[in-house]
Amino acid sequence: MVRLVLDCFGGDHSPEANVNGALLALAETPDLSLVLTGDAERIEAVLKDKPVDRKRLTVVHAPDVIGCDETPTVAIKQKPDSSLMKAVELVRTDETLHGLVTVGSTGALVAAATLRIGRIHGVKRPAFCPLLPTMAGGIVGVCDSGANVDVNVKLLTQFALMGSLYLECAYGIERPRVALLNIGAEAEKGDELRKEAYPVFETLKGIHFVGNMESRDLLSGKYDLVVCDGFSGNVLIKSTEGACLEMLKKLKRDIYSRTLYKIGALLMKRMFDEEKKFMDYRSYGGSVLLGCKKLVVKGHGSSNADAVKACILQAYRMQDANLTEKIQSAIASAAEAEK
Amino acid sequence: MVRLVLDCFGGDHSPEANVNGALLALAETPDLSLVLTGDAERIEAVLKDKPVDRKRLTVVHAPDVIGCDETPTVAIKQKPDSSLMKAVELVRTDETLHGLVTVGSTGALVAAATLRIGRIHGVKRPAFCPLLPTMAGGIVGVCDSGANVDVNVKLLTQFALMGSLYLECAYGIERPRVALLNIGAEAEKGDELRKEAYPVFETLKGIHFVGNMESRDLLSGKYDLVVCDGFSGNVLIKSTEGACLEMLKKLKRDIYSRTLYKIGALLMKRMFDEEKKFMDYRSYGGSVLLGCKKLVVKGHGSSNADAVKACILQAYRMQDANLTEKIQSAIASAAEAEK
Repeated sequence: MVRLVLDCFGGDHSPEANVNGALLALAETPDLSLVLTGDAERIEAVLKDKPVDRKRLTVVHAPDVIGCDETPTVAIKQKPDSSLMKAVELVRTDETLHGLVTVGSTGALVAAATLRIGRIHGVKRPAFCPLLPTMAGGIVGVCDSGANVDVNVKLLTQFALMGSLYLECAYGIERPRVALLNIGAEAEKGDELRKEAYPVFETLKGIHFVGNMESRDLLSGKYDLVVCDGFSGNVLIKSTEGACLEMLKKLKRDIYSRTLYKIGALLMKRMFDEEKKFMDYRSYGGSVLLGCKKLVVKGHGSSNADAVKACILQAYRMQDANLTEKIQSAIASAAEAEK
Repeated sequence: MVRLVLDCFGGDHSPEANVNGALLALAETPDLSLVLTGDAERIEAVLKDKPVDRKRLTVVHAPDVIGCDETPTVAIKQKPDSSLMKAVELVRTDETLHGLVTVGSTGALVAAATLRIGRIHGVKRPAFCPLLPTMAGGIVGVCDSGANVDVNVKLLTQFALMGSLYLECAYGIERPRVALLNIGAEAEKGDELRKEAYPVFETLKGIHFVGNMESRDLLSGKYDLVVCDGFSGNVLIKSTEGACLEMLKKLKRDIYSRTLYKIGALLMKRMFDEEKKFMDYRSYGGSVLLGCKKLVVKGHGSSNADAVKACILQAYRMQDANLTEKIQSAIASAAEAEK
């Protein structure tokens, strides 16, 4: 049985999307059980009249919510009764719980996960690894995407090891093709950090390093994992998403500018719906915070029930494949090899 | 009279695109004269049978070409007779020449411009400032986009000053809205560099600082100039371009997958043509290398004649507005204010 905690507040559509997402995940996965945290009355209101297997779903009351505009380090101290902090405390203290899923404040989550749940032995810093769809029909992970803005080569090697294992465990990608984000393909390109990292990556055991990647190739399908500092990783992810969304918006505006275009677009409606779905990051699950003692999945704030379900199933697959143990063992081997 | 040198080789469509671009620019601008460098015979072959005002167009023979795959520092030494190095030597030694335009090797250009042409007094490092179209119908500049990967706050302030003056001089944008590229909107977000830079930007005279910009807002039209280190600037530009191009490619592929979509797309042909043109970076001129003693414009390697013309007219407008003198004066004032 995989046991996870779901923070039911903090998202744009909470608690409805969270609770309904939980029910969808439970229906699909017989050996999954969930603990839901948040205002119990409101959670029960969503559960009401629905078929609920109470042996696999429990509710823990937590009346507070941490907002996205609150200072993370302050909020996690001042709001122990928030849905997020209750979830964190549960996974921290209950050995039978494997991880947590939230769509709430990213900053509070990183602070709470690092300070309360703690890191896997040997892991220097937890790192985010969100996924994007590629034009070849697959996915690509970016690690780190914002948890660590000032990094060094050692951290980059850990991001590579953790990200590779994650893609193997949760998505069945064998020997993920790992690239270093850089501003040119050649080994000698980039800043001091990248120049120093390249030869280390070439000899790093446990990853399949394929060289530098220029950011224009992110969606090409040639790479499974892109390793970078959290600053440029964040720029990479957000500018890619931003450009795609702005383009779709522009297309829509232009279509509405002429009747002829509107007729044309009507014939292509199904295609445009599919493009929109393809671009919807919610379809691809959440961003995983790799390197914590328990599994941590952060879904998008605008997650609907399907997106919450995807995040839960992501955590389920990771636990099913023993990701945490595998990361611990890989980090230990890397430390051994360094000696 | 504005006098510029045009390197006629090194691009995908050289020398035809370069030479024809020169003729287009001369036809539009009576007080412009151009010196064309490169294999004279091949240049003359393109000029043949065309109406050419030889008082405003001269050709200087330079048989060699520097390829994009050559090591810049080696190439600029070993190929003094290349079209690029001849152009650089001309602007360096001839006081009446105001700048140069090239679509050749970026690396060789940066090395040659820095080492041979030299920096404006007080400028620490030249920086690239390419432009992108915004969804609001305007443009946005990104400075630096790759010439300087390891930077400090001082360099960032110079990028801001030079970029602002450039947008004012070449595009008539009054008080350009300057943003710092960051991973969050708040002043305390980001890495050490950004945290240190924010308060300095707030009090920096000569720029209109509007705060941090997240990369997803690059095309929003809310900013005129985004200031960043060359590494993340490069990631920003290339992932935005890459995402837009990949999306257009995907749309095209999807359209061809069904007859109904093909019919719909036919009705929208003009719109799609306009989207393609909108996304074509060649329409927006080249990337300017700011901070050199002479004007330097780098067009895209795939430039056609119109794109080359756009680059020449960019340099023309900069000279017409005395950009170089204005940068020198702004940098001197900033140094004075620091004392």
